[in-house]
Amino acid sequence: MIKPEPDLALVVREIAEEMQARSDRGDVAGYIPELARVDPNAFGMVVIAADGQIAAGGDSEQPFSIQSVSKVFTLTLALGKVGDRLWRRVGREPSGTAFNSIVQLERENGVPRNPFINAGALAVTDVILSGHQPREALGEILRFMRFLADDVSIVIDEGVAGSEQRTGFRNAALANYMRSFGVIENPVDFTLGVYFHHCAIAMSCRQLAMAGRFLAHGGRNPETGHNVVTPERARRINALMLTCGHYDGSGEFAYRVGLPGKSGVGGGILAVAPGKASIAVWSPGLDASGNSHLGRIALEALTRRMGWSIFGA
Amino acid sequence: MIKPEPDLALVVREIAEEMQARSDRGDVAGYIPELARVDPNAFGMVVIAADGQIAAGGDSEQPFSIQSVSKVFTLTLALGKVGDRLWRRVGREPSGTAFNSIVQLERENGVPRNPFINAGALAVTDVILSGHQPREALGEILRFMRFLADDVSIVIDEGVAGSEQRTGFRNAALANYMRSFGVIENPVDFTLGVYFHHCAIAMSCRQLAMAGRFLAHGGRNPETGHNVVTPERARRINALMLTCGHYDGSGEFAYRVGLPGKSGVGGGILAVAPGKASIAVWSPGLDASGNSHLGRIALEALTRRMGWSIFGA
Amino acid sequence: MIKPEPDLALVVREIAEEMQARSDRGDVAGYIPELARVDPNAFGMVVIAADGQIAAGGDSEQPFSIQSVSKVFTLTLALGKVGDRLWRRVGREPSGTAFNSIVQLERENGVPRNPFINAGALAVTDVILSGHQPREALGEILRFMRFLADDVSIVIDEGVAGSEQRTGFRNAALANYMRSFGVIENPVDFTLGVYFHHCAIAMSCRQLAMAGRFLAHGGRNPETGHNVVTPERARRINALMLTCGHYDGSGEFAYRVGLPGKSGVGGGILAVAPGKASIAVWSPGLDASGNSHLGRIALEALTRRMGWSIFGA
Amino acid sequence: MIKPEPDLALVVREIAEEMQARSDRGDVAGYIPELARVDPNAFGMVVIAADGQIAAGGDSEQPFSIQSVSKVFTLTLALGKVGDRLWRRVGREPSGTAFNSIVQLERENGVPRNPFINAGALAVTDVILSGHQPREALGEILRFMRFLADDVSIVIDEGVAGSEQRTGFRNAALANYMRSFGVIENPVDFTLGVYFHHCAIAMSCRQLAMAGRFLAHGGRNPETGHNVVTPERARRINALMLTCGHYDGSGEFAYRVGLPGKSGVGGGILAVAPGKASIAVWSPGLDASGNSHLGRIALEALTRRMGWSIFGA
Repeated sequence: MIKPEPDLALVVREIAEEMQARSDRGDVAGYIPELARVDPNAFGMVVIAADGQIAAGGDSEQPFSIQSVSKVFTLTLALGKVGDRLWRRVGREPSGTAFNSIVQLERENGVPRNPFINAGALAVTDVILSGHQPREALGEILRFMRFLADDVSIVIDEGVAGSEQRTGFRNAALANYMRSFGVIENPVDFTLGVYFHHCAIAMSCRQLAMAGRFLAHGGRNPETGHNVVTPERARRINALMLTCGHYDGSGEFAYRVGLPGKSGVGGGILAVAPGKASIAVWSPGLDASGNSHLGRIALEALTRRMGWSIFGA
Repeated sequence: MIKPEPDLALVVREIAEEMQARSDRGDVAGYIPELARVDPNAFGMVVIAADGQIAAGGDSEQPFSIQSVSKVFTLTLALGKVGDRLWRRVGREPSGTAFNSIVQLERENGVPRNPFINAGALAVTDVILSGHQPREALGEILRFMRFLADDVSIVIDEGVAGSEQRTGFRNAALANYMRSFGVIENPVDFTLGVYFHHCAIAMSCRQLAMAGRFLAHGGRNPETGHNVVTPERARRINALMLTCGHYDGSGEFAYRVGLPGKSGVGGGILAVAPGKASIAVWSPGLDASGNSHLGRIALEALTRRMGWSIFGA
Repeated sequence: MIKPEPDLALVVREIAEEMQARSDRGDVAGYIPELARVDPNAFGMVVIAADGQIAAGGDSEQPFSIQSVSKVFTLTLALGKVGDRLWRRVGREPSGTAFNSIVQLERENGVPRNPFINAGALAVTDVILSGHQPREALGEILRFMRFLADDVSIVIDEGVAGSEQRTGFRNAALANYMRSFGVIENPVDFTLGVYFHHCAIAMSCRQLAMAGRFLAHGGRNPETGHNVVTPERARRINALMLTCGHYDGSGEFAYRVGLPGKSGVGGGILAVAPGKASIAVWSPGLDASGNSHLGRIALEALTRRMGWSIFGA
Repeated sequence: MIKPEPDLALVVREIAEEMQARSDRGDVAGYIPELARVDPNAFGMVVIAADGQIAAGGDSEQPFSIQSVSKVFTLTLALGKVGDRLWRRVGREPSGTAFNSIVQLERENGVPRNPFINAGALAVTDVILSGHQPREALGEILRFMRFLADDVSIVIDEGVAGSEQRTGFRNAALANYMRSFGVIENPVDFTLGVYFHHCAIAMSCRQLAMAGRFLAHGGRNPETGHNVVTPERARRINALMLTCGHYDGSGEFAYRVGLPGKSGVGGGILAVAPGKASIAVWSPGLDASGNSHLGRIALEALTRRMGWSIFGA
């Protein structure tokens, strides 16, 4: 009993239509003033298959603030710079607490649990910054994003970055706290500045799915043939996304969607179906854990219909 | 550039030999007196491929106390009984704390974070017990294990069960605590009794790998054709094993091994390569998180050589 | 400018009348079924001055369940048995958490913060029990209470004790947890049994104020001349009552009342004005911290009118 | 049996000699570089009795960094400004955690437990700062100290203040964290600047004991007759010192010394014997809770010999 392969383009279009019709949309992140203005009815999805086919639905070309999705790419960059020495400054375990929790840091000497909670991402940013001016570090991150997405038009939304810089007291608390333990080494304002700016990178679903291809294909861009990271490192980044990529909703995401993924409070999610596809979805309304409400539902529908879960045939 | 498929039997034999030669073996669990007597030099491994091929190495026929590995099977049973209502009593998120932590329960009204930490497994056992005598509930669990492994010789080690019952004060604390919130409904001694006994089931690597086949093959025993659970449920149990199966070392296991798995303090690990194989490994020495030290290393070697990680080609 | 000494009898009568007229009464403890039946409108107060004068108001002769007020007396007994060795098993610091919290125990190896939170009182009871049958230990506690109050009619309310024994799962959790660390040494059921029973001692305000006289007068019963404890020990027990006697409302009680005191969820409070008076007050409605709402307000009025705060002229 | 009143001057001299002879001195605070240079062998003590008698011993005229002892005076100032509205921003309960813990803030919406832990003192400083420039607020604090001590020579040690400003990342974390909850309202750097500077006030034991007289005498300077605060407020500040004045060693201090007191990591302690004396002691070596090791022992000896404990005759 062989089922025919579903038509990816059709599946993505259908899902986008279903999502656009739903009235439950979650709540747009209110704590960053600039983000609160985004249209809650937006929904976009892009899937890039192994053969290069691009299936798109909804607002797939509209740029949004990638926020914490950027942490996948800064992790990749930092591992490229210092390799496994990175793990002296940040752990690899789910946190069991909210994305901006400081409790765990006090219990564990200022070492964040993983690179995808805010504290961990700040430590990763600090590694990239090391020995550079903030402007240089930020330039490097932006160039990396443009290279991965093969798109020089990607920019930082300065309005969002400034908005965070003026109101990001909790991140400032985390950074100062880690600085007191030596886990952050640069001037706290430098590290925070680079962090707020790379979180404020604006990308469309298409651009984000393009940038994620190397994780779906053993570390290699299947189109250009460029090796971005080794196959082992790609697997490991995917494993971290699976266990830690959705804050305190990571278990739920694995249970329902069954793909490695990383969410951001801008409503974007990058997901990876190893060997099959790079996927980006965007809908600004968030669930209680701070992950895109419709984004997760759309990915659940996609993996079910395509049979893409990494947890079984 | 097609690489030839590695010879599974050879790979497993080699790994068993490498493990037996290592001197770093971790520490045998000391807190259950009966378990402390096990030979720390034991090592066994069995892999059952999709086609039924059995590759074995080391002490693959020697029974050991499966301990928390039993939680995969009690979860399967409880889901069969009450379906998604189970999730009213237990969550699906990694805990971020040790296997026997009670802190999280206080913060979250007595609802354990997931079915694989001790508190969560006690809640699951309580669901199976519901309306039955402890002896009946235990009989049901044992029959399920024998059915899955196709082996009526599987028994409970009464010495181990009694040893835990006399010394398991921390589990008694967890059970009483949850009882105070109504998360455990049966008399605490009944629930603890069934729990200590199913943890004391003794199985060999061969028996354990046999019992795990349904999880590797969409919920279906590939040999008999029996559907144990639906494909969706098999995927979801695998997802829970990936995010929560190794206590506060789950992130590390996913990062290094890249397979869903569940460990026990007896030194056993059941791992699942979806679509490919059911795997059991056993070595009594534990790492700091309470997972088999050599067991994890052996599985890491296996997935690397066979290319079986779920996180990438 | 010398103010005349206020008339104690008049002050106590006035306060009792004011309290009986108030409509804000707090909530009667619901978690022990037997206690939930108590009349929320009850209010009693007895003050025994240094010269033996007894000033009474309201329901001063009606027995109530002293609950945690008993912990002052078990602490006194345990110190008499093992002296400062007691402090190996229990600390002397405020807990910063609720009366039945288990979080602190996990952080600090099962050693409770002080003898007045539930966990600490269980450890104290365990010391009294040591080497005895529960019945003997309980007999000793009851004889001590009768001796202090000079009243052989004091008894244990078996209905309350049984009610707690059937429902006291959280205390059972605490006791099992400490047993796992060796902080409790006797069979858990024995320690819990003695604990539930001494908490169920029923006394009137008059009896309780009588029993507390030694703490107000340097360890000595001013009427009989019996030395119950040394002056230093009396001071130290008073200090512990001040810092820890009202759970997570101890700071508030010190701030408002300014006397050492110990509350119980039955609504009773024993307070001590060193050198001046032993005071008992009872009103069953509790505030958010589990302390008698009107009891605290009445004591605040008493210390203000009598000028008895230990914190200033 | 009337014992003769001990000779205060003799008692203080004896204690100073005993302390200077001891070899156990605790560890000088290492985390503020400037403080680490202080001579660990210093010891000073001054007691000012109700009649104005000044008993001094040891290095009683040598200025030291008062650090957290300043929090008693900033609390007094802030209460004078906003009265009980202060308690919207800070609690009145012992914390049960270390002086610089951030865990409690996360649990309780950024509201610190009491005005004497670092977080609480930052909130108090923020209240004093409100609507002023940092320089003005600091001037007001310094003038208040000079007025209380009747000594215009009191100054801020700019070296210490600068040292803290460069290294006080944990305090910066606390301040930013509270700012994110609106508990701190001024620019974080302003609040931190004033805080670091008032902690860096340098005073001798004599000056400190002079400044504390109003707390020992119902809010009134007994020499000048100035009413600094009402008698009720003086009692309440004393109560807060008793329950919260020594961080997570407050219970121990009450148990051993039996007086309200406030310590600083510079090794100073201000203690108050209500109606009897204002006391300052200084020895730079700290115990595990961050309180002066010999300071506490000296105060214990003083209260024992003088019979000054507030907990009993």
